[in-house]
Amino acid sequence: MTTTLRDYGVDIGGTNIRLGVVEDDLVVAQYRQPVGEHRSPQAIVALIVELQQQAMQEWGPARAVGVGAPGIVDPQAGMILKSPHFSEWIGFSARDAIAQAVGVPVALENDANAIAIGEARYGAGTGLTNFIMLTLGTGIGGGLVLRGELFQGDRGFAAEVGHMVIQRDGPACNCGGHGCWELFASASGLHRLIDASDDPAKAAFLEHFHGESTRVTPAAAYERALDGDLFAHQLWRQFGGYLGTGIASLMNVLGVEHFVIGGGIAAAWDFFAEATQRAIARHTYPENAAAVQLHRAQLGDDAGILGSAYLASRCVA
Amino acid sequence: MTTTLRDYGVDIGGTNIRLGVVEDDLVVAQYRQPVGEHRSPQAIVALIVELQQQAMQEWGPARAVGVGAPGIVDPQAGMILKSPHFSEWIGFSARDAIAQAVGVPVALENDANAIAIGEARYGAGTGLTNFIMLTLGTGIGGGLVLRGELFQGDRGFAAEVGHMVIQRDGPACNCGGHGCWELFASASGLHRLIDASDDPAKAAFLEHFHGESTRVTPAAAYERALDGDLFAHQLWRQFGGYLGTGIASLMNVLGVEHFVIGGGIAAAWDFFAEATQRAIARHTYPENAAAVQLHRAQLGDDAGILGSAYLASRCVA
Repeated sequence: MTTTLRDYGVDIGGTNIRLGVVEDDLVVAQYRQPVGEHRSPQAIVALIVELQQQAMQEWGPARAVGVGAPGIVDPQAGMILKSPHFSEWIGFSARDAIAQAVGVPVALENDANAIAIGEARYGAGTGLTNFIMLTLGTGIGGGLVLRGELFQGDRGFAAEVGHMVIQRDGPACNCGGHGCWELFASASGLHRLIDASDDPAKAAFLEHFHGESTRVTPAAAYERALDGDLFAHQLWRQFGGYLGTGIASLMNVLGVEHFVIGGGIAAAWDFFAEATQRAIARHTYPENAAAVQLHRAQLGDDAGILGSAYLASRCVA
Repeated sequence: MTTTLRDYGVDIGGTNIRLGVVEDDLVVAQYRQPVGEHRSPQAIVALIVELQQQAMQEWGPARAVGVGAPGIVDPQAGMILKSPHFSEWIGFSARDAIAQAVGVPVALENDANAIAIGEARYGAGTGLTNFIMLTLGTGIGGGLVLRGELFQGDRGFAAEVGHMVIQRDGPACNCGGHGCWELFASASGLHRLIDASDDPAKAAFLEHFHGESTRVTPAAAYERALDGDLFAHQLWRQFGGYLGTGIASLMNVLGVEHFVIGGGIAAAWDFFAEATQRAIARHTYPENAAAVQLHRAQLGDDAGILGSAYLASRCVA
């Protein structure tokens, strides 16, 4: 009989669901299932149960399960109100449905918030009273840690920072808004920046992608920059500029000096961070710009699992 | 000998300094001194002492004095780091200087935050766990009440909401930034909107102002709208649109549903509020737009005095 305290953390992504076994604040094993075409609430619950059973066979049962889900989550009610990747999830009582299926207590949180909690407790946010977590991916995930605690707004809506307006007359966003930050400073933003560019070096760059900007992944754009491609360098500087505009804006609103930046795109840090700092200086008081500190996230893909497992550990006395 | 608990609240404005005598949560008397050319730290302290002596003669001494000051204030250190209206105030230890001069404990806060505290305790924010206070004047003053308390950021910098970027390639702001919200949704914003307009009705409107947009005060633009001037109506709708864009952005970032709107410009509410709601709907999720509630501030010019007097009351045991 083991006496190890063990919780499971689940990260529901648009492509994969991952479950991590967390012991002593470490992810000791990870299991993964592709989501595929099965995107209904029932199908997702079934996949989580499958992952739980795999994990239990090797590691034994968990005290509780924490789940980070994409979309607008009401953590008190345990509900997913809506989700960009799962159109059928409208007012889905995910916490209770999953708890019933897995047979242990479940904590539910927005995925970006779960990442913020992970970094706050075990990563780059350790010891910071206030910080803003930015997860750069298809969009911009955000988490606000204020006075040492996650701030969730009135109904779990907080930190949809990707939908902060930075260009009032800008392009339409699928949130229904216009000129949202994540239209520029995200993976899809890279495509937009490429399409809008009239840099003569663009053609040579796009040759590596069959001439199609939509084939440019952040990882590939990063590799091209590593290879010394001039357009790729310019692209990352532009990206950094948009990133910095939004960070300055958040600094002005919240007066928070620490930003923890993660997500796949953060890998290209060396190519955009300087432009980000310049844009921050361009869009806020000199005192504010000098005070801003950008931190790279430390936990990578484990952040969300650790964060949701931590929330799970608080569900059990 | 009276046993009434009495505090003084001081509001330092760019034009006047006002001191209010607060008894039983009411402003029972107000005194005022024009700032004029005397804008040094010493001159302002001397004016506050003068107001204090006037008030004491009629109402007796106060337990403590609360001061709301424009600019970037560090309330813990009791310092004004810098101020848009008082160029000599750089790292001015206002709290200690005033306390020494008036002989009672002093609390110092940013003026917009003092207004937020006033509305939170006695006005439109009563009972709201989270709300955002917007004071529309020359710029946009902001105060964030989160989890029932003023959120001040890392060093009292929070809620410079007027400097949130809403038009990345927009005009330069005297904060050093570009495209700040308050360049559009403020008194100076009205001038900018008039200058940019090519509405044929503009000429008739401007006739009332000797053809000069800079002579258009918010009060005068409001009067023209009351008189049925078509351009004035259009102007307020535009103003409302910019106001709503920023409110939507704040809603997306903080997930806070309640906004309390005060300041002189709020008088024109009936002419801009509908356009504000439309812009909110244009720039956020339908769920968010439906959840936003705009409240008119209730305390007018008393808000800042009541708020700073409340802070003063917490300085005495």
